Amino acid sequence: MRAVLLAASLCSIAVSAAAQTPRPDPGPLTIARQGSFFIGGRDVKSDTLSTLPAYAASGTITVDQMYVRYQVPVGVLGVPITLIHGCCLTGKTWETTPDGRMGWDEYFVRHGHSTYVIDQVWRGRSAADPSAINAVRSGKAAVDQLPTVFSAGHEGAWAIFRFGKEYPQLMPGMRYPVAAQAEFWKQMVPDSLANLPTPNPTVPALSEPTDDMTPYAGLPILVLFGDYVDEFPRWAPRLANCRAFVAAANAAGGKAEVLVLPDIGIKGNTHMLMQDDNSLDIADILLDWIGKHVNAM
Amino acid sequence: MRAVLLAASLCSIAVSAAAQTPRPDPGPLTIARQGSFFIGGRDVKSDTLSTLPAYAASGTITVDQMYVRYQVPVGVLGVPITLIHGCCLTGKTWETTPDGRMGWDEYFVRHGHSTYVIDQVWRGRSAADPSAINAVRSGKAAVDQLPTVFSAGHEGAWAIFRFGKEYPQLMPGMRYPVAAQAEFWKQMVPDSLANLPTPNPTVPALSEPTDDMTPYAGLPILVLFGDYVDEFPRWAPRLANCRAFVAAANAAGGKAEVLVLPDIGIKGNTHMLMQDDNSLDIADILLDWIGKHVNAM
Repeated sequence: MRAVLLAASLCSIAVSAAAQTPRPDPGPLTIARQGSFFIGGRDVKSDTLSTLPAYAASGTITVDQMYVRYQVPVGVLGVPITLIHGCCLTGKTWETTPDGRMGWDEYFVRHGHSTYVIDQVWRGRSAADPSAINAVRSGKAAVDQLPTVFSAGHEGAWAIFRFGKEYPQLMPGMRYPVAAQAEFWKQMVPDSLANLPTPNPTVPALSEPTDDMTPYAGLPILVLFGDYVDEFPRWAPRLANCRAFVAAANAAGGKAEVLVLPDIGIKGNTHMLMQDDNSLDIADILLDWIGKHVNAM
Repeated sequence: MRAVLLAASLCSIAVSAAAQTPRPDPGPLTIARQGSFFIGGRDVKSDTLSTLPAYAASGTITVDQMYVRYQVPVGVLGVPITLIHGCCLTGKTWETTPDGRMGWDEYFVRHGHSTYVIDQVWRGRSAADPSAINAVRSGKAAVDQLPTVFSAGHEGAWAIFRFGKEYPQLMPGMRYPVAAQAEFWKQMVPDSLANLPTPNPTVPALSEPTDDMTPYAGLPILVLFGDYVDEFPRWAPRLANCRAFVAAANAAGGKAEVLVLPDIGIKGNTHMLMQDDNSLDIADILLDWIGKHVNAM
């Protein structure tokens, strides 16, 4: 069975017209089953798990596993969808929006797709390893051995998410629900990306990738971008990279495409388009694309 | 409306006979609505959010908020239930068990209770603050200012969870699914409890408690313990403390009780009784107790 991966990181992964389609109360949701599990993980022996007397410094912990929560709808199933959040966030990205609207995690289930939401390794419910911190705290390692864990501040994240060029300015016609920004900031967590081995264990937990383009032969891929991309030095090169990837995949027999929303007349979407005020219209475009391009078997 | 809080920390919060009742496929589940949100949170300005050039060192982040995921069943609703995990874990505690059985999070929804699962502050999807780590890493603070974040190793956690007195020995008749222990270890995350302000922000996020016993007047409280408590120096004093709390609450007009499972003939349960092989039988005892003692209005 083919599966669809929607990733919100380097290449964000389509919306209707200016105003979001009215969304009446969808009523109850019936699911066949739900649950959560981990993929991957390895045991690490450490002598610096703790500097507190109540917890042993030495022992074994398990890290690099990836948390996954899923729901499977009843009825005829479409292809399964995996939702992958980006920097400094967790699977919460895809759940209820900051202003209280339905997240894509539930919307896709309501449209017949089993949906899997992950927390990238070392973030959220996917455990990090505190050994390096405790090694320094206990004098067993030098300060420069501390992890490069970081948080993105509201001010810096503003441009990363393309809400505006500088905090708190807004891009013209921008569709993120900024009135609820305080709730959005609560979704952000420290990120240990720079500490992780290569490849980032999230990647093998999702697939077994190489530089070989052969697996892309015949594989439907949609790379979706919102608005304002060319106005942000962080994003313009990424769109260019994604266009190059799509060309390489298609040269290898792939069926890849890039969709930049303003090119089909949908303006105002940010990097966090799964939370923008037209988020479910964008989900509808994705569902339509999946229906036309991805075979269930 | 009264709500029921089930906490797995200092005082764990009832099981049938020796073997778990057979559990046929429960079939589809219909829910009225679901989603997630945060409670609490405060903005913190910091100059040490990052030591990486790609992310600004200075800015504002939001911490101390508590992540909550919920499902509301259809039909006549019982009292809502909040599930609170303990040390070194997240809300995953209450979801699918390590050996793949239904978690209490879904079981209570299937029995008519809206169910709320939290991640305690600074853990899982509830953001921590990396500022202290980066302050030391950048030379702005001394090493002793590093946080006392710790992980519980498998070996030390063994006795904490009462699987056995020493890793990897087993208590006689112990009911935790140890064949799936590798999946359990993946649930454990670093814990920042020792760094948190007093009161731990999880507490006001759940209620507004004081030492005043007046609010306990008329309040139904069940403190549930599993087996082997008196054989563990960590746990025997906690049971004694819980008995003292129950006596104080009842002296103030409360309706509190302690249930130690072996006292009603149910043996072999660990601290992680929501994952033991008779976990749903224990849930049934709780549902029966709630039905008899807690009014919905």
